Amino acid sequence: MDYFFSDRVLTLKPSAIREIFKYAADPAVISLSAGNPAPEAFPTRELAEISARLMVERPIDALQYSITEGYAPLREQLTEYMKKKHHIGRDFDMLLVTSGAQQVMDLATKSLCNEGDVVLCEAPSFIGALNTFRSYRARLRGIPVEPDGINLEELERALKEESRVRFIYTIPNFQNPAGVTMSMEKRRGLYELAKKYHVLILEDNPYGDLRFEGEHIEAIKSIDEDGIVIYAGSFSKVISPGMRVGYAIAPQPIIQKMVVCKQGSDVHTNIWAQMLCSEFLSNYDFDAHLERLRAIYRKKYGVAADAIRRYFPAAITYHPIQGGLFLWCTLPDGADMPGFCKQAVLRKVCVVPGNAFLTDETLPCQSFRINFSTPTDEQLERGIHILGDLAKEIL
Amino acid sequence: MDYFFSDRVLTLKPSAIREIFKYAADPAVISLSAGNPAPEAFPTRELAEISARLMVERPIDALQYSITEGYAPLREQLTEYMKKKHHIGRDFDMLLVTSGAQQVMDLATKSLCNEGDVVLCEAPSFIGALNTFRSYRARLRGIPVEPDGINLEELERALKEESRVRFIYTIPNFQNPAGVTMSMEKRRGLYELAKKYHVLILEDNPYGDLRFEGEHIEAIKSIDEDGIVIYAGSFSKVISPGMRVGYAIAPQPIIQKMVVCKQGSDVHTNIWAQMLCSEFLSNYDFDAHLERLRAIYRKKYGVAADAIRRYFPAAITYHPIQGGLFLWCTLPDGADMPGFCKQAVLRKVCVVPGNAFLTDETLPCQSFRINFSTPTDEQLERGIHILGDLAKEIL
Repeated sequence: MDYFFSDRVLTLKPSAIREIFKYAADPAVISLSAGNPAPEAFPTRELAEISARLMVERPIDALQYSITEGYAPLREQLTEYMKKKHHIGRDFDMLLVTSGAQQVMDLATKSLCNEGDVVLCEAPSFIGALNTFRSYRARLRGIPVEPDGINLEELERALKEESRVRFIYTIPNFQNPAGVTMSMEKRRGLYELAKKYHVLILEDNPYGDLRFEGEHIEAIKSIDEDGIVIYAGSFSKVISPGMRVGYAIAPQPIIQKMVVCKQGSDVHTNIWAQMLCSEFLSNYDFDAHLERLRAIYRKKYGVAADAIRRYFPAAITYHPIQGGLFLWCTLPDGADMPGFCKQAVLRKVCVVPGNAFLTDETLPCQSFRINFSTPTDEQLERGIHILGDLAKEIL
Repeated sequence: MDYFFSDRVLTLKPSAIREIFKYAADPAVISLSAGNPAPEAFPTRELAEISARLMVERPIDALQYSITEGYAPLREQLTEYMKKKHHIGRDFDMLLVTSGAQQVMDLATKSLCNEGDVVLCEAPSFIGALNTFRSYRARLRGIPVEPDGINLEELERALKEESRVRFIYTIPNFQNPAGVTMSMEKRRGLYELAKKYHVLILEDNPYGDLRFEGEHIEAIKSIDEDGIVIYAGSFSKVISPGMRVGYAIAPQPIIQKMVVCKQGSDVHTNIWAQMLCSEFLSNYDFDAHLERLRAIYRKKYGVAADAIRRYFPAAITYHPIQGGLFLWCTLPDGADMPGFCKQAVLRKVCVVPGNAFLTDETLPCQSFRINFSTPTDEQLERGIHILGDLAKEIL
């Protein structure tokens, strides 16, 4: 039978990263292409303790239907924690627990964008979010990212030229894939532009707690007195991604629409996982846990940066980072980046070609992304060594 | 700030059931309005055992990112089980694990329906699914349900009149809310009509294993040699709804589109919950467990039916059922059904007004839905007693 598909999915392709994962599944291949937290970063002992207690003491609560908005104690804890620690959340805001931060992108786009509406994104940006926007037939327009964040002149030009912009999507901390962190000046500038042009900001902050160098910079949401920022948080990088627990903090009218959409999408998020997060926050030292994670990633970044200095030719540049999980490396002008990535696969090392992260994948791109959280130190060193040798041969 | 919302969500309302749940949250209220499995139906001891073992022996597997299609062992087990036990699944089919069966509705509609496309539904039908179809701006057309299932003449008339029908949505077993079960003749008839008019069937079967009387009838999917049926299964009523694990079995091209949509929706389903289902299926006697559930619901249905016979005036009719969780009761012509439901709330008993389940809620409706799985036997008896007294007074 010939199947009819919606216009939405006709243009959607499985992400380029997924295709690369097929090679990366080969155990002989060193994968520098994933985005998984380091296995040693999971608080496995604590979670096993909490889970065992829950399943014995409160099994019905952990197994029965729950409400769409999320597990009430977790919502209260997070509301309080984000307000106290990050100045995030005003009286007009509300918190919704989601099935990973990915679902924040999904529910926000579904609630806010008609087909043909415009989402302004950093270029490059997180492919998972871009594909979600595309899946609702939003039109994407990329705004270049500089070492201190999005280019505000280009952003304003786009806001002037495009009449149907619904929101600006940004990852201000240790951006995926570029690794850059937006300065406070630019955060304020971006906020003022959004306000001036009456568009919302979707602030995605999965890596904010993983700063291993430099000074903390407040979230854009922390200055949101006008109710124009939707903040997406996640436990994926700080507790466990397999649980799929994230959250949105946004003005109540927006959250209410997202709740109705979530009802039709998955009813509610796995309740055991929400209780696990709640118990972890209340019975363990979350800040000490985050400090431990930062130490893990500081060390892994050190291994990666060392190997790059040792093995990469000077012609490959990369942007030093202060946190997160990714390094963005750039081949010199004229080099064949896709060819380089393909050759690397043949030598059993996977990286992600940078054009996968563009709003238009066919645009020229000289960069590729390295992930340093998933591989072991040995794999990291060996993988970068192989990439360096390859670069020296073909450049 | 005045927020702009997509056309999709402008017409969406929180479901009428949710509004009723607000009253039902009052502990003094007897809720006959929910759809929760009986707490005693959860295999809590077994799940606690499995979970404890997983979190100690394989914590990284249970906490790390997983693949969108679902946990491979669970997919294999389910594929095998559904084929062997229910003749469901052909070589052209594929299985996708979803975050509850609700997500099957969501991903299927997103993949198959453009705005303005038509979904044919039973009238009445499951409100959660109807709202999902609406959320993609599909147009709903209701086809009356008779004691042996959907009216095939009306169905064919709709198929002739509507040029943009994408699929027929049906719950053939112990339909929510009407409680009716479609005969095998009608299942075959529906299949032939779908084939003749080149439309798909979305077969939702959350209650199929909860038959406590009569002979099992094969699923429509079991006769699908043409690749036109999307089958939605769920662990919500047979293991735990709070885990949010369901699955779709459908032709590969459709599943592939659904996978791309799921990637952008929640990346993958909570992996711990998938592993729990898989371990339960392989290490415990699932069929014996189902037998235990059937005994629980047979008993609870008996309590409800007894109380109805005892307390309801003859003017209230109801359709006897052979399984599932719901009873559909109908007031005589001319009675004020919404008024009856409101009066019942004032007397601290909640039921769901039947028009909530129609494609057009403003159509006249004399019925209300009673759930007998959630309340205790005492609540069930007392609630039906109160409803009966009320009916005798106002009819």
